[in-house]
Amino acid sequence: MDRYLIVSTDGHAGLLPEEYRPYVDPAYRDAFDATVAEEIAARAAREKDFLIQSFNDEWRRNNAGKLAAAWDSDLRLEVIDADGVAAEVLFPDGITERNAPPFGAGLGLKPWGVEPALQWAGARAHNRWIAEFCAQAPLRRIGVAIVPVLYDVDQAVAEVVWAHEHGLKGILIPAVTGEYAPYNHPKYYPVWRECEARGMVVHNHSGPTPEYDFSLPGAMGVFMVEFAWWAARPLWHLIFGGVFEHFPQLKYCLTEVSEFWVPSLLELMDVRASVKHTSGKLGDFRSNLTMKPSEYFDRNCWLGASALFDEGSTAVRKEIGLDNIMWGTDFPHPEGSWPHTREKMVRYMAGIPEDELTRMLSTNAIACYGLEGDADALNALASQIGPEKSLFVAEPAE
Amino acid sequence: MDRYLIVSTDGHAGLLPEEYRPYVDPAYRDAFDATVAEEIAARAAREKDFLIQSFNDEWRRNNAGKLAAAWDSDLRLEVIDADGVAAEVLFPDGITERNAPPFGAGLGLKPWGVEPALQWAGARAHNRWIAEFCAQAPLRRIGVAIVPVLYDVDQAVAEVVWAHEHGLKGILIPAVTGEYAPYNHPKYYPVWRECEARGMVVHNHSGPTPEYDFSLPGAMGVFMVEFAWWAARPLWHLIFGGVFEHFPQLKYCLTEVSEFWVPSLLELMDVRASVKHTSGKLGDFRSNLTMKPSEYFDRNCWLGASALFDEGSTAVRKEIGLDNIMWGTDFPHPEGSWPHTREKMVRYMAGIPEDELTRMLSTNAIACYGLEGDADALNALASQIGPEKSLFVAEPAE
Repeated sequence: MDRYLIVSTDGHAGLLPEEYRPYVDPAYRDAFDATVAEEIAARAAREKDFLIQSFNDEWRRNNAGKLAAAWDSDLRLEVIDADGVAAEVLFPDGITERNAPPFGAGLGLKPWGVEPALQWAGARAHNRWIAEFCAQAPLRRIGVAIVPVLYDVDQAVAEVVWAHEHGLKGILIPAVTGEYAPYNHPKYYPVWRECEARGMVVHNHSGPTPEYDFSLPGAMGVFMVEFAWWAARPLWHLIFGGVFEHFPQLKYCLTEVSEFWVPSLLELMDVRASVKHTSGKLGDFRSNLTMKPSEYFDRNCWLGASALFDEGSTAVRKEIGLDNIMWGTDFPHPEGSWPHTREKMVRYMAGIPEDELTRMLSTNAIACYGLEGDADALNALASQIGPEKSLFVAEPAE
Repeated sequence: MDRYLIVSTDGHAGLLPEEYRPYVDPAYRDAFDATVAEEIAARAAREKDFLIQSFNDEWRRNNAGKLAAAWDSDLRLEVIDADGVAAEVLFPDGITERNAPPFGAGLGLKPWGVEPALQWAGARAHNRWIAEFCAQAPLRRIGVAIVPVLYDVDQAVAEVVWAHEHGLKGILIPAVTGEYAPYNHPKYYPVWRECEARGMVVHNHSGPTPEYDFSLPGAMGVFMVEFAWWAARPLWHLIFGGVFEHFPQLKYCLTEVSEFWVPSLLELMDVRASVKHTSGKLGDFRSNLTMKPSEYFDRNCWLGASALFDEGSTAVRKEIGLDNIMWGTDFPHPEGSWPHTREKMVRYMAGIPEDELTRMLSTNAIACYGLEGDADALNALASQIGPEKSLFVAEPAE
């Protein structure tokens, strides 16, 4: 084949807030009606603090007519075909963009300022919709269910089962656990067990953080320094908590946290797990591990490498592990590669050997999400829409 | 001179809790009497969760008679003479060890579970004592005042003035700000201005973190991964907040956060301050900076490199900056080098050129703390007690 198969492991899909109504359980529709306008207004207010208005206005103007691909099935296929993408992992949206599940159940998924029952209702509404959306083009869509696992483990297990039975391939859990139990708590074992048994990939995606006061000088710089740490924080809770020891087939994916710093994180975890003199006075934290933290990462974890994938990412790809990186477009966010995906891919990946690119662009994702049965059909599609391999036979541009 | 001058930038000093009574403002002595036993019991309970009892018992048994050097002036001189240390920066204690200021005003200095007025009273009690302790051997003791700056900026400024007028050389501020304003808030400018004007070094020291549930599997591993991040968090608030832009002579020191990961932190801050496409939609966070974050670090910041100083630290000393590292013993903590300071220094620093060692062991600290007037006397002392330079002329041991 003279084209690459592209499985983007970071895409977003979701309805406009008011459109979720039919997917909300009838018991929560009154609450939906009472709050949806307020949630839209709150998100708009937040957007003013958080985003450069002119930048977003221009982005939306330039891409008018295409951004509806967040929920329009036919348009989504047209857009990703043009982008060279054969299949996509689909997360919700909702930190700033307009298509967001109700009751704070979107990508942010914070465990405060919301009723657990309502956040569950919002999550289930999105899950029902994304299952339908994926069923409209099952080869092309790898759906991720929202599972606010903090509040009720039985309900979380039931939702994993439901999601798997409805064709979804993974779950998104809250990255910030607030007052709830962190992910080294054994109470979550039933969730991990169900995910392991069904091959459901557990995800955290950048975005959720504690609150920042963006009116303060440099607050956005502080956010930039910290956002990936907050998103990645469950990783070391799972590793040091022994979760991958108990569930050795469990798959965990960190998406859009940027890659250049991950080798230093792996080193940090390994050093912290091995320091002896300086940690001699502290309690035990190694007896439940049989491997180094970086070895659990290598075996159980993946990076959904999208918006922030650049020369800093490619430089460390072998330190991270060539089998642990899965590229993505982050459609439809302005920080992603769309609508210039080919150019951006070539810019940062030209010169990388074909077998390495193949892994990062598709086969790692096929293995992670268990898509082996779809591989032939995906390759057939890629032979028509994928980016030409010849584009990548060059030195990377500066 | 055939010996090195050692200025340790990490030492701890403090009274046993009950001994602070005479230093507590009379208005708070009833509160002191009502709570001191309870605080001692709470610390003992915490120690059970947090420390390996047998390790600490053995440590205390082996060093019986020497640990009183935390508060006994003559004994302290005897102990550091034997350790080859000419002068020490003196922090409070109190996360786990027994000599801790009252009202949670020790090294932990958390802004929750305590009345601000009481924490201030505890801080002032320690400051009065440490000023006396330093005055008993002013050449040998570089005292740090506790300033819980979060609650009242005017009071903080007054305490900086008091501390400076009483011979102290720096302040310790809370690392974890909780519900209070983070350090990019302009409300703190008067504190930074006063510290800059008086050459008072602002410190954070590892230890303070949010609460962990150490009964959970791997919780201590999570703590180990995170403790330095929590201690260092004020750094990027100060940098991105433009504080070093407004106060270009302000000195900031991070103590006992370990060194091997600092180059990756500097890289992280620089990348986050420079990313353009991916941060294009976000609000402004660069217009208040005229330099790269790592350049502010180089100009305004130091590392108090103590307990965790090892081959990982020496390997990155040039990446961090040879003028930004100041070695320390962490006396009297078991994770520090005492009572085997010479052996530990040689183990990790043999083979490093003399001019580099001189900077890390003394001249950087002399510059940071403004001790130029004491340099001759310190060198005279070191010529008697300092470790022989010949010990370091060798390859580092494995």
